[in-house]
Amino acid sequence: MSGFITFLTDFGLQDDFVGTCHGVIKRIAPGVEIIDLTHGVRPGGILQGALTLANALPYVPAGVHLAVVDPGVGGGRRPLALRDAEGRLHVGPDNGLLLPAADRFGGVVEAHELANPAYALESVSRTFHGRDLFAPAAAHLSLGVPLAELGPPIDPEALVRLELPVPDIGHARIQSTVLGVDRFGNIALNLTREHLDEAGIVPGTRVELVSRGDHYFAVAARTFSDAKPGDLILYEDSYRNLAVAVAQGSAAALLTVEEGSDLLIQVDTP
Amino acid sequence: MSGFITFLTDFGLQDDFVGTCHGVIKRIAPGVEIIDLTHGVRPGGILQGALTLANALPYVPAGVHLAVVDPGVGGGRRPLALRDAEGRLHVGPDNGLLLPAADRFGGVVEAHELANPAYALESVSRTFHGRDLFAPAAAHLSLGVPLAELGPPIDPEALVRLELPVPDIGHARIQSTVLGVDRFGNIALNLTREHLDEAGIVPGTRVELVSRGDHYFAVAARTFSDAKPGDLILYEDSYRNLAVAVAQGSAAALLTVEEGSDLLIQVDTP
Amino acid sequence: MSGFITFLTDFGLQDDFVGTCHGVIKRIAPGVEIIDLTHGVRPGGILQGALTLANALPYVPAGVHLAVVDPGVGGGRRPLALRDAEGRLHVGPDNGLLLPAADRFGGVVEAHELANPAYALESVSRTFHGRDLFAPAAAHLSLGVPLAELGPPIDPEALVRLELPVPDIGHARIQSTVLGVDRFGNIALNLTREHLDEAGIVPGTRVELVSRGDHYFAVAARTFSDAKPGDLILYEDSYRNLAVAVAQGSAAALLTVEEGSDLLIQVDTP
Repeated sequence: MSGFITFLTDFGLQDDFVGTCHGVIKRIAPGVEIIDLTHGVRPGGILQGALTLANALPYVPAGVHLAVVDPGVGGGRRPLALRDAEGRLHVGPDNGLLLPAADRFGGVVEAHELANPAYALESVSRTFHGRDLFAPAAAHLSLGVPLAELGPPIDPEALVRLELPVPDIGHARIQSTVLGVDRFGNIALNLTREHLDEAGIVPGTRVELVSRGDHYFAVAARTFSDAKPGDLILYEDSYRNLAVAVAQGSAAALLTVEEGSDLLIQVDTP
Repeated sequence: MSGFITFLTDFGLQDDFVGTCHGVIKRIAPGVEIIDLTHGVRPGGILQGALTLANALPYVPAGVHLAVVDPGVGGGRRPLALRDAEGRLHVGPDNGLLLPAADRFGGVVEAHELANPAYALESVSRTFHGRDLFAPAAAHLSLGVPLAELGPPIDPEALVRLELPVPDIGHARIQSTVLGVDRFGNIALNLTREHLDEAGIVPGTRVELVSRGDHYFAVAARTFSDAKPGDLILYEDSYRNLAVAVAQGSAAALLTVEEGSDLLIQVDTP
Repeated sequence: MSGFITFLTDFGLQDDFVGTCHGVIKRIAPGVEIIDLTHGVRPGGILQGALTLANALPYVPAGVHLAVVDPGVGGGRRPLALRDAEGRLHVGPDNGLLLPAADRFGGVVEAHELANPAYALESVSRTFHGRDLFAPAAAHLSLGVPLAELGPPIDPEALVRLELPVPDIGHARIQSTVLGVDRFGNIALNLTREHLDEAGIVPGTRVELVSRGDHYFAVAARTFSDAKPGDLILYEDSYRNLAVAVAQGSAAALLTVEEGSDLLIQVDTP
């Protein structure tokens, strides 16, 4: 067995952190292939990393899914490996990062703490578990080492779970939260098409967006190209989240929002 | 057949767009090898992407060349696959992005619209054709699927072509345009050595550069190391474009230019 | 033979420089696997590149180690390939970049100038030796070409060496220099645990940091998670350098330091 290890972190590419982890994996499992999902998660952005991972994994080959966004490194949080109901393996810290992705594949059926030093580097630093603990565990799993070899079992119910921000749905108005902003300035919201239905906002409706006290008009549209340059649109993005974009511009810059910002959507009734 | 897929986009590496496309390719063609040319093209920078692709491809193995800079995604622009005269395959949007590269290999001999759903993902979103349409098509081509299977033929003459900015050559003066600025602040111009000859500017000439009304002196030089720190030089870059650099500094910052800026070059006749 | 080529540069990922070098390597040695250590070294940052390389290589598979941070490209500096005492091969410019890494493996036992045009691209530009000279040499070495084939030998003693900044150790005070700042804002110093011992600063000591005339308090700690958010800590980083961090924040932003900045550490005696 070798196959694929996917890799997602908040390490960035400015330093050698990602490259060094690649090296660690390749020394243990030279034949495995690594797919870098992204290393551009905001430093410490556990929720952003978890959502990105959950969105990406359905598109990539099954294998070992290594993810490290780990502001609590060196503290009490447990290092984990787990198996989901479809047999994919996930490796990372027990801070909620792995669970939204595992839930896409039926949820966690088996979890183990990384405690067996035979599957870590000889010397484990206190600040770089990506290199010393998680990458080696992922590499050994890709070689077929049984999950149970890595350490004692953990009850899946006892794993740390993230709280996702919940939208407040009213009549003809929704109080939403920005989940993230992508390179193009498109704004992902904690909403799906069903939330719009619930609020009675039908496709094609002209809506008002309220950000930081300022009001903007937007139209529900199906794609960027339906809109004129500069027009704000509310659309279902390619991961089936609702999102806000501005044709040929950055919606995040226009509305001055970032991850965690509030955004009020209300039907524009002139 | 498997070989290589090269990959160039304006997706950046902050999000999972590139990693997800890698995953899509690997699910279809696990044995193909992906070479990331760059994903740092300015968002929507079709001309920049086209020129970068044309400069890079002569240095990389022949294969399938996937490129996505696609501000018109979801609109009327056609998704394409084409073959050049040397047998390389190119996949991307019909917005001019692919043609300067194909021209380096004798031009387009066969083009097809991506219309066959058998070679796309099951569900094609309106905003992420890189993942849903272009990556799958490239993967299938790398497995040996014939180009004609992907969809109806298009007359190569009917493909969208970019207009490259044309320099205005006078006697001892050239009005040029900045094509791009690289990480080191070096400025690529829409000029070759032949344009300098035409204007009567010989190697070693001292020239004046005029940017935004300000005047700077530069010398035609062969390499950065011919110049003293801080000196501006006009030189033929490694892709045989004329470029402006400043030894151990950023010429773009000094001249405050960016892609699309005007730059006047005139012989300095004191 | 094929194996691994590791690759470190200051090219960044915005342009196609790295991707084009990958292409050049793959045309010569299609079966070799490239591990990108990082391409985020500060432009021209030879010392930063050298230290990063020396820190990373012990974690990656032995092979050919290609590194290009080369502000003197096209000038008099020699292009090199060398072998260390453990048999690893290193390729890059003779400006000191390669030597701290080679020293980790017993030092340089054999060095050759890259002078044989059979192992370079046909046309060698004056400004992009990464593509035209270094990448091809690394690829040919990975195929088993003997080092001596690449060009005339150079006495290892004659290679250019970097001067590392030396700390000034006093009683209960150390004048140190910032070697680098990582993505998380952690500050690497030119110090090891032994320097602290020498100055009589024992673990757990409360110290004062002086940067640009401003004073800050820090505590020697073992990991980020020992500290409260906002606390400055002085700790041994995962490469066994002393470093300064602030829990859940950027120490570099707080202390307004960058590579090369001075940082005074003194025991806080109230």
